[in-house]
Amino acid sequence: MINKIAVLTSGGDSPGMNAAIRAVVRTGIYHNLEVIGVHSGYQGLLEKELLPLNLKSVGGIMQHGGTLLMTSRSEEFKTKSGVKKAAKILRESQVDVLVVIGGDGSMAGALDLYQLEGFPVICLPATIDNDLYGTDMCIGVDTALNTVISAIDKIKDTASSHRRAFIIEVMGRNCGYLALMSGIAGGVEYVIVPEFPVNLKDVSNKLKKGYQRGKSHCIVLVAEGAGDVYDIGKFMEDKIGFEMRVTVLGYLQRGGFPSAFDRIIASRLGSAAVEQLLKKNDHHMIGLLGNEIKTIPLAEVLSQKNKLRKSMYELANILAQ
Amino acid sequence: MINKIAVLTSGGDSPGMNAAIRAVVRTGIYHNLEVIGVHSGYQGLLEKELLPLNLKSVGGIMQHGGTLLMTSRSEEFKTKSGVKKAAKILRESQVDVLVVIGGDGSMAGALDLYQLEGFPVICLPATIDNDLYGTDMCIGVDTALNTVISAIDKIKDTASSHRRAFIIEVMGRNCGYLALMSGIAGGVEYVIVPEFPVNLKDVSNKLKKGYQRGKSHCIVLVAEGAGDVYDIGKFMEDKIGFEMRVTVLGYLQRGGFPSAFDRIIASRLGSAAVEQLLKKNDHHMIGLLGNEIKTIPLAEVLSQKNKLRKSMYELANILAQ
Amino acid sequence: MINKIAVLTSGGDSPGMNAAIRAVVRTGIYHNLEVIGVHSGYQGLLEKELLPLNLKSVGGIMQHGGTLLMTSRSEEFKTKSGVKKAAKILRESQVDVLVVIGGDGSMAGALDLYQLEGFPVICLPATIDNDLYGTDMCIGVDTALNTVISAIDKIKDTASSHRRAFIIEVMGRNCGYLALMSGIAGGVEYVIVPEFPVNLKDVSNKLKKGYQRGKSHCIVLVAEGAGDVYDIGKFMEDKIGFEMRVTVLGYLQRGGFPSAFDRIIASRLGSAAVEQLLKKNDHHMIGLLGNEIKTIPLAEVLSQKNKLRKSMYELANILAQ
Amino acid sequence: MINKIAVLTSGGDSPGMNAAIRAVVRTGIYHNLEVIGVHSGYQGLLEKELLPLNLKSVGGIMQHGGTLLMTSRSEEFKTKSGVKKAAKILRESQVDVLVVIGGDGSMAGALDLYQLEGFPVICLPATIDNDLYGTDMCIGVDTALNTVISAIDKIKDTASSHRRAFIIEVMGRNCGYLALMSGIAGGVEYVIVPEFPVNLKDVSNKLKKGYQRGKSHCIVLVAEGAGDVYDIGKFMEDKIGFEMRVTVLGYLQRGGFPSAFDRIIASRLGSAAVEQLLKKNDHHMIGLLGNEIKTIPLAEVLSQKNKLRKSMYELANILAQ
Repeated sequence: MINKIAVLTSGGDSPGMNAAIRAVVRTGIYHNLEVIGVHSGYQGLLEKELLPLNLKSVGGIMQHGGTLLMTSRSEEFKTKSGVKKAAKILRESQVDVLVVIGGDGSMAGALDLYQLEGFPVICLPATIDNDLYGTDMCIGVDTALNTVISAIDKIKDTASSHRRAFIIEVMGRNCGYLALMSGIAGGVEYVIVPEFPVNLKDVSNKLKKGYQRGKSHCIVLVAEGAGDVYDIGKFMEDKIGFEMRVTVLGYLQRGGFPSAFDRIIASRLGSAAVEQLLKKNDHHMIGLLGNEIKTIPLAEVLSQKNKLRKSMYELANILAQ
Repeated sequence: MINKIAVLTSGGDSPGMNAAIRAVVRTGIYHNLEVIGVHSGYQGLLEKELLPLNLKSVGGIMQHGGTLLMTSRSEEFKTKSGVKKAAKILRESQVDVLVVIGGDGSMAGALDLYQLEGFPVICLPATIDNDLYGTDMCIGVDTALNTVISAIDKIKDTASSHRRAFIIEVMGRNCGYLALMSGIAGGVEYVIVPEFPVNLKDVSNKLKKGYQRGKSHCIVLVAEGAGDVYDIGKFMEDKIGFEMRVTVLGYLQRGGFPSAFDRIIASRLGSAAVEQLLKKNDHHMIGLLGNEIKTIPLAEVLSQKNKLRKSMYELANILAQ
Repeated sequence: MINKIAVLTSGGDSPGMNAAIRAVVRTGIYHNLEVIGVHSGYQGLLEKELLPLNLKSVGGIMQHGGTLLMTSRSEEFKTKSGVKKAAKILRESQVDVLVVIGGDGSMAGALDLYQLEGFPVICLPATIDNDLYGTDMCIGVDTALNTVISAIDKIKDTASSHRRAFIIEVMGRNCGYLALMSGIAGGVEYVIVPEFPVNLKDVSNKLKKGYQRGKSHCIVLVAEGAGDVYDIGKFMEDKIGFEMRVTVLGYLQRGGFPSAFDRIIASRLGSAAVEQLLKKNDHHMIGLLGNEIKTIPLAEVLSQKNKLRKSMYELANILAQ
Repeated sequence: MINKIAVLTSGGDSPGMNAAIRAVVRTGIYHNLEVIGVHSGYQGLLEKELLPLNLKSVGGIMQHGGTLLMTSRSEEFKTKSGVKKAAKILRESQVDVLVVIGGDGSMAGALDLYQLEGFPVICLPATIDNDLYGTDMCIGVDTALNTVISAIDKIKDTASSHRRAFIIEVMGRNCGYLALMSGIAGGVEYVIVPEFPVNLKDVSNKLKKGYQRGKSHCIVLVAEGAGDVYDIGKFMEDKIGFEMRVTVLGYLQRGGFPSAFDRIIASRLGSAAVEQLLKKNDHHMIGLLGNEIKTIPLAEVLSQKNKLRKSMYELANILAQ
């Protein structure tokens, strides 16, 4: 029987993590579970940074970005002995299941706990990269999309006032999702993503033509995994014959008040995690497919990559005419 | 064969309508269609307010709320002779299909055009009420959710600083979706929606207990279809014994820059509308179910109501503990 | 010699109060003072809700609306015995000076402490009404202005899409500042403030003409002190002949993340308060006149009212053509 | 007698330029002047890109960033023959006075028109750098401050969740105003500006100590004129012993909806420009000193630099403890 659960956030922070923590805690307490928080992710776990959480500890947190529990990266936890030590600490603290909120690295750690030590875990996908298999959206992606389009909107003001060209680097590691979708939503002229390689000469020609046709701005998004934005800018500048100004959005994409969508998805997934662990559905990730909550074995999540839809890429190009 | 299409927005405006217009126009032109815009909805159609649209006419509009084409309510179009006149005007202008962006009233009008006059129509769901059957989300809902939670966040500042109680009326006509989901995302203490009637005395007692337990604020959302917010506030005030301040959010819920989600759904649905009308799938609404584009016959859309999920209502209550 | 100071927030909350608290605390500690916070304003003072504040207690608060120290209204403190009790508590706690952050009611309380009990006080003006004599701007006004214009911008989307008329009530008690300045910044058609009475018939005619000339919207702001917004709306509706929709912005005007301006003015005034109290300039309010910090005797502040500039009212009318 | 005026925006765009244009146009028309707009700054003037402006041409523009009239940089106008040609075009178009909205380069151009060709000009200060002598604030600065603090708030979420150090480059050319004031408003740990050189080793030590004392984040702002942000980051990284992540905010600082403050200052200055030119006060800049409108001879504006107040720099350091 499950009496006590622990929750931690791990890896890069993403907006909505707090709403997920809150949902785990409040749904846990609703089901008469004891809930403790692990401070600073796996590293904090290894250092026994455990704190009891009650209804009030998670009050007033959901509107804030980042994570109340803090996060970290842990080298020790990547070793077998680290995993063993973590399981021991959890067992000594009478924890029955560990809820992990994070991205693929965090899930790999959770799977180690389960596979190497048999410790029950359940995971929630939280990363602005949206690169996880088994869920349409990860916690934090929607807020990041809104942050990126807000930056695009601002840069467009200047681009339109000067008829200038801008090239903007968007986060996402090896995944072009954030760049592609914010390109569609931001109405930019071109999006370069790692999943669909392009000939930069062709892109340059296309941009040049749009410009000559009278487009009032020229904005290109580059997913961070698609190449060096400064090199791409330089190449295009030479080809097109006018200056391309480079902006790297950087870390501000990870913060900010969570959007309604992220607070809702985080609340749904966090609450579902508790419902599932009560059903012994551990070593799973809780995802949102379509509009439904699904559980997917962690091993399956980690064996595949989220695919970027070709149709979305085509849509971006049609709308950017 | 389809050569020329017209697009109009009708009924209440919602954020993302411009992105939908843009997607219809640009996808139409991509498929070598001629596209014209109808100004001021069905009323403008009856007054022949038609204007040609090209790639450039829809440049720089997607980041703005409202609708470039404007909208209106038309009494004349509700009559058979009005519908007949509209069909005649469309035919005289060589329009092959009419794309209608709006809510249920707008779709009823489109269905009349099809059923009474045999004129091909295709509809996109756009209303912040999210009361349409056949789509998980309507264009504009996500932005409205974000507007409402931003208002809740602001009111919470005051509520927490004074330990005060607030009651906020949220739009949605007979549908509690906007209130319920913004209640979950806003972390409020209670949501009153028409779909799930409550005993106000029980609600008052619950709120009183939370307050006595030390909650730093007490915020209640009331969907506009769930009763008079001032009456509800008065009743609770008497029961709980402290002042409930009433705020009616009103029309600001309908405006604002469209969120990323709304720009994306509007772009996808608008583009899909053109793809579908080329396949002769007219008298349908284009919806988003799960993460997939679906077409649903207009008659079916109008014969049912979107249901509010009981599970979401329960989630709201669990998280509001 | 001054060794220990206390700080409290009182009356209605306003955005920037936290930045002011932070500045008082950190500047105090910089000058080797001991700083304590009073929870829940004068009422909390009477209930001895005192807590020590250090550098860290005020970390991460300045970006939040409301007030960390909370506020309240106190009936007891309005009595002579209440004031006496408060002074006694402060003296028993070895407090040398009390820093009060709030509006005119809060300052009147502070002046009582000084005049009746000889207890040194110093005040910072914080109210979104901007009705205090002796300072060009109060803490919170700029954020409230931005909140109001953001609401106006949103309502304009709908007004422009429908060619509709809206009438919006703006806070400010008896002072029209917030309404007038947000009217200028929001580009509305008319602003009705208590300071400059108007003939509603003339206003209606003016609006009607603008509409007939082709204005795409008609938005009227009414300061809360200028009359009942529903009555005004009804009157105009009858005169102009089309529907005026009423929106009461209400309490959301008091919350929200403080703007840069409010964080800066709050930081400057809070820090200056400590500098001044070290110079024994107590029973003063610290204000910002032009771009300079000034100290004004509390009695003088309370004997006069901030005047609304006629030139601003004329500017609003010229720009609203 | 003055019958016709022209208005142009020049140099880098800044938020609020549209409100300034609107105020010039509407106040001009109020005084029965004919107003024309010059498209694309001085370069557009040389290419006779003139367009008549009426009340309606400037409707609905004030809430948008950038400039309706567009801007550009012109090499030709920097020559004597260019200035001569511009004056000739203005005279042939019966323009009596040219209103120039921009920064110091734009004002230098205006002064050339006046000094070399005797053509009457009047200037409004608009640049986010706030480096102009003769005005406390330039149009656009307040919006830029809000954009920067919003970015800082977002990065703080991540910084606090990871206890990480960030170094952020802020615009401002040779002027540290934007960095310093957003540093105060953003609550960062250190601000490096060109006006007050620092020893990087001392700064590093200070930051290290704050960190060791338990600060949850470490954020350093660097004004672009204060040195290479990557070099500074590298130096500190070596000294402090942990990674400093660099973010260059770049062009997004120039865009966005103008804040209330910028719309008001732009409206006041734009309107005052027309009042002043009617009084023949040309070859002046209209500035805001304290809360009053002032006119300053252009030659004087250009002969001096806005000074950063030492007291503000000290305030930043006291509050960053």
